Amino acid sequence: MIPIELNKRQELILQIVKDNGPITGESIADRLNLTRATLRPDLAILTMAGYLDARPRVGYFYTGKTGAQLLSEKIKKIQVKDYQSIPVVVDENVSVYDAICTMFLEDVGTLFVVNKEANLVGVLSRKDLLRASLGKQELTSIPVNIIMTRMPNITVCKREDLLIDVAKWLIDKQIDAVPVIKETEKGLEVVGRLTKTNMTKALVDLGNDEML
Amino acid sequence: MIPIELNKRQELILQIVKDNGPITGESIADRLNLTRATLRPDLAILTMAGYLDARPRVGYFYTGKTGAQLLSEKIKKIQVKDYQSIPVVVDENVSVYDAICTMFLEDVGTLFVVNKEANLVGVLSRKDLLRASLGKQELTSIPVNIIMTRMPNITVCKREDLLIDVAKWLIDKQIDAVPVIKETEKGLEVVGRLTKTNMTKALVDLGNDEML
Repeated sequence: MIPIELNKRQELILQIVKDNGPITGESIADRLNLTRATLRPDLAILTMAGYLDARPRVGYFYTGKTGAQLLSEKIKKIQVKDYQSIPVVVDENVSVYDAICTMFLEDVGTLFVVNKEANLVGVLSRKDLLRASLGKQELTSIPVNIIMTRMPNITVCKREDLLIDVAKWLIDKQIDAVPVIKETEKGLEVVGRLTKTNMTKALVDLGNDEML
Repeated sequence: MIPIELNKRQELILQIVKDNGPITGESIADRLNLTRATLRPDLAILTMAGYLDARPRVGYFYTGKTGAQLLSEKIKKIQVKDYQSIPVVVDENVSVYDAICTMFLEDVGTLFVVNKEANLVGVLSRKDLLRASLGKQELTSIPVNIIMTRMPNITVCKREDLLIDVAKWLIDKQIDAVPVIKETEKGLEVVGRLTKTNMTKALVDLGNDEML
């Protein structure tokens, strides 16, 4: 995939087709006082780039897509599963102290809390744990299910969701990570973790030519 | 900017120019048993897209750039200043307890520590504060300069640095945020903050057509 910039004549053609399409190549050439042969490269570029589409005996018509739209369509094809990390889970009955230790041992910013059927029941962020650690209570005696964020306040995603959608949720809901889940008869199985680190990696890959 | 995909003939032309360039349009047409007129749209596309360049009386030559390179060049033009946030700083003598409170009040994940000349001397992450809160000491009695990350272990960036470079540092050094600094005679003045949240926003903007 390559980005190209339109020249003035191509912009003009685009405007003519936008206003008058479907329109034949000949009619476009007439309006510009040019020959069809002169216009051929421009029409080829506009069609290849996805701005215009052409049908035999009908002519050129405008697809309604802007250049940036066509580029962002590529980015919009990246799925959660292309970038998700391995989830780190703790049982809902472990202490806040043990959860903090797990967070350090596993070196993650968010833990997912599961019940004894291994289904998602909560989320613990560094912020949640830091807040709890400020309290006067002994951290070894408080179970995580007292301080965790619980359903229905948890944002989840699936492997097939679009990365860009989850990126928006992270920003809009001001959260650091989202559990990737699989719905089963018993509940929500945690199959992955999608964080702002994963988003940063996606951006780096885009800059490194590793995605398109 | 629009992304386009090359057809087989264009790939072939690219290969011919790569192997034989500089080469005239006529010679390319000869090799393909086509007329120059037939090739004109393809050559126009390849030149506009940046794959080929042409000089009068010399002919076409290969620029050495792949499609993905040309796209990533656009991403590589985004600077730190396009996405940086306002920094939150604390004095090096405040207590760990006060720093945690500031972190919650300002709702940030990283604090920058400054000396009395307001120059950068340290960085405090949520992880640093969480680790300190696990200790047995009274949080109100430990100053942050005991637990902060200090120079030369702090990664800094400038307003004019490339966003994509800082994104790589965040990943490689496993940090959440980097201070944006300005060098003065006295030291490093903190003028911004660049985080994985900013990187996630950049990715969302790319997907939303708001960047290119």
